[in-house]
Amino acid sequence: MQIREFTAADWPRVWPIVREVVRAEETFTYDPRMTAEQAYDIWVESAPGLTVVAVEDDRLLGTAKMGPNRSGPGGHVSTASFMVAADARGRGVGTALCRYTLDWAKRRGYAGVQFNAVAESNERAVTLYRRHGFAVVGTVPGAFAHPTLGRVGLHVMYHEF
Amino acid sequence: MQIREFTAADWPRVWPIVREVVRAEETFTYDPRMTAEQAYDIWVESAPGLTVVAVEDDRLLGTAKMGPNRSGPGGHVSTASFMVAADARGRGVGTALCRYTLDWAKRRGYAGVQFNAVAESNERAVTLYRRHGFAVVGTVPGAFAHPTLGRVGLHVMYHEF
Repeated sequence: MQIREFTAADWPRVWPIVREVVRAEETFTYDPRMTAEQAYDIWVESAPGLTVVAVEDDRLLGTAKMGPNRSGPGGHVSTASFMVAADARGRGVGTALCRYTLDWAKRRGYAGVQFNAVAESNERAVTLYRRHGFAVVGTVPGAFAHPTLGRVGLHVMYHEF
Repeated sequence: MQIREFTAADWPRVWPIVREVVRAEETFTYDPRMTAEQAYDIWVESAPGLTVVAVEDDRLLGTAKMGPNRSGPGGHVSTASFMVAADARGRGVGTALCRYTLDWAKRRGYAGVQFNAVAESNERAVTLYRRHGFAVVGTVPGAFAHPTLGRVGLHVMYHEF
């Protein structure tokens, strides 16, 4: 598996992953009715941010975006988001994207990586992030409306370098 | 003091307040170099959000914006931001804006109000929010670069209804 920078030619293979993840409404606080154009604007970062894809042979398995979490006096902390195709889960794609992001953020001199809204029901992600050095800073109770579990908490997670 | 809906005619009196607050870099994680046009886009909310101003006689003392904190499965929690003119502080403007926001969010049926990034050094704001029922959910260490205090934490605060 290789992680490489996103190019516009990847979008026809990235959009179905984004659409599937967003429409499931199980992990992201994105509007499930977003169009491909809106998704492109949200997902494809420009400098100083970066969007990458995970590819294996000719398959596109997942994608990540990363960049400063806030502006001005908050610009020294980065953030990131990850999406993995449903039929590619459990194969280390999220792990590879997370490692890539941590390396990227360290190289760029960020003080750490912050996740602003991790659904506490997304145990796969929470476990993966903990394994990579993230800790739950706090949990906003009931802030995520899961389609089957009802309202669950949203974790703020942080990995300080 | 009266809190009323912002109109475009207010902008020449709102922009100096926003500019002063943002350039001070003591409270907001906004780019201190932002232009008036960028500030307008960030500060002036469209529905379902709302921007208001606090006025007394003919003076514009402060401003607030409010709206959903996230989209999709996170859209039932609201957020808000407040700015008070430097020479109008300590006169209850922030209190009036905070109360207005809580009433607005309750009437609109939100589950609560979340502040995503309150500099822990901003004791005036933290005290005011606590007094109105907000609690610190967690603090991201060193995530705010204060111009004189150095890196201080950023609180996530929440008031559940």
